[in-house]
Amino acid sequence: MTETNIQAPDLPTAADVFAAAERLHGQIHRTPLVTSSSLNQLLGAEIHFKCEHLQKVGAFKARGAANAVLQLPPGTEMVATHSSGNHGAALAWAAAQQGIRCTVVMPENAPAAKKTAVAAYGAEILYCAPTLAARESTLAELVAKTGAHVVPPFDDARIIAGQGTVAQEIVGQCRELGFSPDLVVAPVGGGGLLAGVALAMSALAPDVRVLGAEPAGADDAQRSFRSGTRVTEQVPETIADGLRTTLGVRNFAVIRERVSDIVTVSETGILTALELLWRRTKQLVEPSAAVGLAAVMEHSARFRNKRVVVVLSGGNMDFAAVAGLLADR
Amino acid sequence: MTETNIQAPDLPTAADVFAAAERLHGQIHRTPLVTSSSLNQLLGAEIHFKCEHLQKVGAFKARGAANAVLQLPPGTEMVATHSSGNHGAALAWAAAQQGIRCTVVMPENAPAAKKTAVAAYGAEILYCAPTLAARESTLAELVAKTGAHVVPPFDDARIIAGQGTVAQEIVGQCRELGFSPDLVVAPVGGGGLLAGVALAMSALAPDVRVLGAEPAGADDAQRSFRSGTRVTEQVPETIADGLRTTLGVRNFAVIRERVSDIVTVSETGILTALELLWRRTKQLVEPSAAVGLAAVMEHSARFRNKRVVVVLSGGNMDFAAVAGLLADR
Repeated sequence: MTETNIQAPDLPTAADVFAAAERLHGQIHRTPLVTSSSLNQLLGAEIHFKCEHLQKVGAFKARGAANAVLQLPPGTEMVATHSSGNHGAALAWAAAQQGIRCTVVMPENAPAAKKTAVAAYGAEILYCAPTLAARESTLAELVAKTGAHVVPPFDDARIIAGQGTVAQEIVGQCRELGFSPDLVVAPVGGGGLLAGVALAMSALAPDVRVLGAEPAGADDAQRSFRSGTRVTEQVPETIADGLRTTLGVRNFAVIRERVSDIVTVSETGILTALELLWRRTKQLVEPSAAVGLAAVMEHSARFRNKRVVVVLSGGNMDFAAVAGLLADR
Repeated sequence: MTETNIQAPDLPTAADVFAAAERLHGQIHRTPLVTSSSLNQLLGAEIHFKCEHLQKVGAFKARGAANAVLQLPPGTEMVATHSSGNHGAALAWAAAQQGIRCTVVMPENAPAAKKTAVAAYGAEILYCAPTLAARESTLAELVAKTGAHVVPPFDDARIIAGQGTVAQEIVGQCRELGFSPDLVVAPVGGGGLLAGVALAMSALAPDVRVLGAEPAGADDAQRSFRSGTRVTEQVPETIADGLRTTLGVRNFAVIRERVSDIVTVSETGILTALELLWRRTKQLVEPSAAVGLAAVMEHSARFRNKRVVVVLSGGNMDFAAVAGLLADR
């Protein structure tokens, strides 16, 4: 831990994940595991997909956001964040559930579907220029003016613990099905999901290998993991828009300790996996959610004859644009 | 029954549905029911979607085809049919499961995805000109030459009984969830699904109303139902390609006796329902499968505050073309 000084005082523990699961009971869906016999045959492995695209707001992000909102300091009247993706909608939803006001700072050029989702959950949108600097300064101004409590998208102990509840469910569901998985694969962007999953698995099923999967065009997590030093700058180039962020400080601290490895996948591999998921499982997942299956396909030797749980992280996208990409190949 | 002389000797009975369910046990999936709280709120009704797009071959057609193949006369070595849709793939799959050869007569202009599916299940494809006459004469020649046993797509007692197993599952699943539905809605093309569902429901839950739903642009079933005389000619104009066929003789005989009503929906309604299904349930259903939800939306007074099961019939399509239609609206 010496190189990067990441032993922050507020790193989440496995106990935080279990507490989150109690807190979230009845607030979120216990999403199903699905399998496809034709995919299993094709891949020579037994794959169970954890369907977080069927979660509230269509992404695992609902877990972390709700876990944070349910632990706000007493008297908090308003939360805020900046987001161009699923976290904004998740926080808007979680705040609305508790009757708390929410403002999401969004770049003017955010996808229309994301703006619609945030507004539909009753949050206010504050537009800013499409740069990270503008987002942060706009959010800071808002906080100074309103005293809103900021809920960050991934670099936050409550968020990591909330996302980890996915893994607690996976362990229980596999037990009900009468098996223990050999590996669990989760996509990694900012690292909220992967850190949470690794934290829960290390406590509940330490023999299960946890693998992160990310696009080769946004491989900061693999470079951070392998070098031991968190990479903070990259120019991401990938269709997996949910995975363009760089790894958070707390996320890296958990991941480097508890994840077995991080593998990268090609853009072609992501599209191939996405098309297989659509065709074989009929589940409308977004490109970021296909990165786990792409990893199984592009690193097949690691998965052959194994029992694997792959987390499908979300299902929000511009359908026509994504379907067009698949058709144009 | 006097007007149309439809009391054919081989009409299926409810007992045939129950026998089919026994026969199909372990061969097909017991597909899940899914709900969406946001859709329920939007529609003012409690909708449970029966997910036949998650059935083997991606459509309820696997049920009827397997039921027919499992009852072939002893010594049958080969089956055949003509199809440009899901029945061809379903028969190819069912035959392959039993090690029986299968030939599907397909029009040359059939969608590439359908040809690929039939071939992938190991059936032979015999191409013909894209007319009904050419399909029938090509099939007749094949039968004369090979002695193949023909399994028709819907006008067949074994097929109707097989499709009816959907309803037997629905009754059991609703009971497990602790309720009895007020209505069950199924799309109607040739009428295999609707007739089978009505047959099973009339025996298992006679108080439940069974409604057929069809595109206004292919409304032969409603006209047949309301006039009492089977309409045999129409020029269908609808995106719901699975519902362009006209009602079969046996299908009409069952439907006129046991279905509560048949309603029609607009093309705009089908696309609106399709987009809601994709966005809210993340289930990749084909346009024909959206007709039931379109009926709930366009005939909302019939469904308000009711518990409704809507059958999602299949999920096979050209994704890019369909997504493009949604985007172009």
